[in-house]
Amino acid sequence: MPITYVDAGVDQTAKDKAVDSILAMARRTHDSAVIDIPWGFAGLYSLKNLPLFDRTYRNPVLVACTDGVGTKIKIAQRVGRHDTVGIDLVAMSVNDLIVTGAKPLFFLDYIACGKAEPARLKAIVQGVVEGCVQSQCALLGGETAELPGMYAPDDYDLAGFAVGIVEKSKILDSSAVKVGDNVIGVASSGLHSNGFSLVRKIVFEAGRKEPNEVVPELGGRTIGEVLLTPTRIYAKAVKEVLRRYKVKKAVKAIANITGGGMTENIPRVLPPNCAVEIREGSWPLPPVFPWLQRLGEVPREEMFRVFNMGVGMILIASPVSTNAILRTLRRCGEKASVVGAVVKGPGEVRILPDPGIGA
Amino acid sequence: MPITYVDAGVDQTAKDKAVDSILAMARRTHDSAVIDIPWGFAGLYSLKNLPLFDRTYRNPVLVACTDGVGTKIKIAQRVGRHDTVGIDLVAMSVNDLIVTGAKPLFFLDYIACGKAEPARLKAIVQGVVEGCVQSQCALLGGETAELPGMYAPDDYDLAGFAVGIVEKSKILDSSAVKVGDNVIGVASSGLHSNGFSLVRKIVFEAGRKEPNEVVPELGGRTIGEVLLTPTRIYAKAVKEVLRRYKVKKAVKAIANITGGGMTENIPRVLPPNCAVEIREGSWPLPPVFPWLQRLGEVPREEMFRVFNMGVGMILIASPVSTNAILRTLRRCGEKASVVGAVVKGPGEVRILPDPGIGA
Repeated sequence: MPITYVDAGVDQTAKDKAVDSILAMARRTHDSAVIDIPWGFAGLYSLKNLPLFDRTYRNPVLVACTDGVGTKIKIAQRVGRHDTVGIDLVAMSVNDLIVTGAKPLFFLDYIACGKAEPARLKAIVQGVVEGCVQSQCALLGGETAELPGMYAPDDYDLAGFAVGIVEKSKILDSSAVKVGDNVIGVASSGLHSNGFSLVRKIVFEAGRKEPNEVVPELGGRTIGEVLLTPTRIYAKAVKEVLRRYKVKKAVKAIANITGGGMTENIPRVLPPNCAVEIREGSWPLPPVFPWLQRLGEVPREEMFRVFNMGVGMILIASPVSTNAILRTLRRCGEKASVVGAVVKGPGEVRILPDPGIGA
Repeated sequence: MPITYVDAGVDQTAKDKAVDSILAMARRTHDSAVIDIPWGFAGLYSLKNLPLFDRTYRNPVLVACTDGVGTKIKIAQRVGRHDTVGIDLVAMSVNDLIVTGAKPLFFLDYIACGKAEPARLKAIVQGVVEGCVQSQCALLGGETAELPGMYAPDDYDLAGFAVGIVEKSKILDSSAVKVGDNVIGVASSGLHSNGFSLVRKIVFEAGRKEPNEVVPELGGRTIGEVLLTPTRIYAKAVKEVLRRYKVKKAVKAIANITGGGMTENIPRVLPPNCAVEIREGSWPLPPVFPWLQRLGEVPREEMFRVFNMGVGMILIASPVSTNAILRTLRRCGEKASVVGAVVKGPGEVRILPDPGIGA
């Protein structure tokens, strides 16, 4: 029997239609830097609009990041809601990018699925577009790969790529960090997109919960809603802080608190002979964390090593700049507070228990 | 029972070790434009080394592409050989990028797997590094996501992301293509990375073949070897052709022959009122194509609509420039010949049967 590509599970025409609607959505994020080539497989972004040829960029450096959403996608599938994981996807790469001091320019997404179901694809891309709008960057391109036999019809995975630009002398390299500096914590929106293999094990295996269950402790929202809360994107706020205090280099280092928590992400931005003390209780702990800890009987140190525990991004600044930075962050809509300090030590992060609630 | 992240199937320490060895391999592809930040999640690429500030780039445009390898990965898994799909991954994005006229700068990879098995990861990244070396671009970063529950322990998927640069006035937009131009075909290495859902259906389902079977018709190589032949990367040859003939704009358009074959990829670079006639028999047909066609009883038009049929890239050029371009391509190690011509018509590609072998 003759075999054609549609027999093999790939319907190119249906996919092309979905891709057209994706292109239309992506154009929402385009500014005059994006050069539209309707026939192309490549996205084109002009650097001419950037002030490359005046004095702003003397030594421009491109910054590139890639990341996925991890098994948070499994939650989206279980809940049947697909318009938020795209925000997470953009957040994962963009939040990594801005800690270098860079400004995001553009983003590309890779969607692999068993079946290019148009409504689901559209929802995913709506999230990606929303993430790009929040990050003030262009969705420059993407690939939707229909891979029957590699993914089940309802399965998919996402990968994202972000490119930004920074003047070389403005790259945050943490060399200015010193003992006595403050650690400013910017609130996370919840779990963000890390630790979901553990979350799923705790909630659905050990806890035997269902996603549509309403938990009073979690503010009366369903478990699915709480777990799917999109990752906060700090691009606007961080850009504003860096812009306002660029001459004085008030911000000495920034760390994105992803997998590994504060415990593993802060040491990466510490110079030798510096450590950090974090004071539990100096920021509000979102209820999802104590709920998960109790449900899974997870040791306290493990919680801090896997989850952000309510702090999505940290900025290290001298005491004299701290209040001005806090004000700017809050004006940009972020919740921020001093959560600790740089101390003498061999690079570790010590989480000091809140005396009010005990260890 | 207390649950930790290792219980949930994610071994961060083992993964960190694998990532360290990946970083060491990636450094092979770095030149002085890459700024090494060992603590970072972001790759940094300086534009200062490019002649941005003299007269070469007056209006620099970044070009970005993303793609995966598709179900060719399933063949790699079945054969148990993982050091070639990384070459395919780079090829898929870089070959899309160069058709705009851009020069590749850097590449990032996303590897998602059920279990970050170090030997397999190393083999995959070896391929990615080889692809970057062939493309003369830097492997600037990547992400290895261990996603138990989303992928089976032996399963993985790959996504790639390439960024290049082109002077705006040098972007190939096919506006100069006209009736009478030649279509130059550059030989593919075989199937490249498209149509593998169909390939797998034909070979393993309809044909009931095993990957280790040796087929005399395929030159005495095993089926697995033939199917896994890495995608040819045309970056060096295309860069050389564009460099040599940049003033005269001898090359009017370039199309990467991927999924959709010549039938669907050539029309994207044709201006209105132009069509293309391709003369079958004017290039050598790799034996894998007639073998697949017979095994699957695939209609001839379907073969040309799914596979590259031996032509991996086409360049459109005026008759007066054709011989010089052919010589340059051959000097760069490519097999190339005139495979057709631009004719009057409504944008379609007509494949004229070889009178020697019949339709």
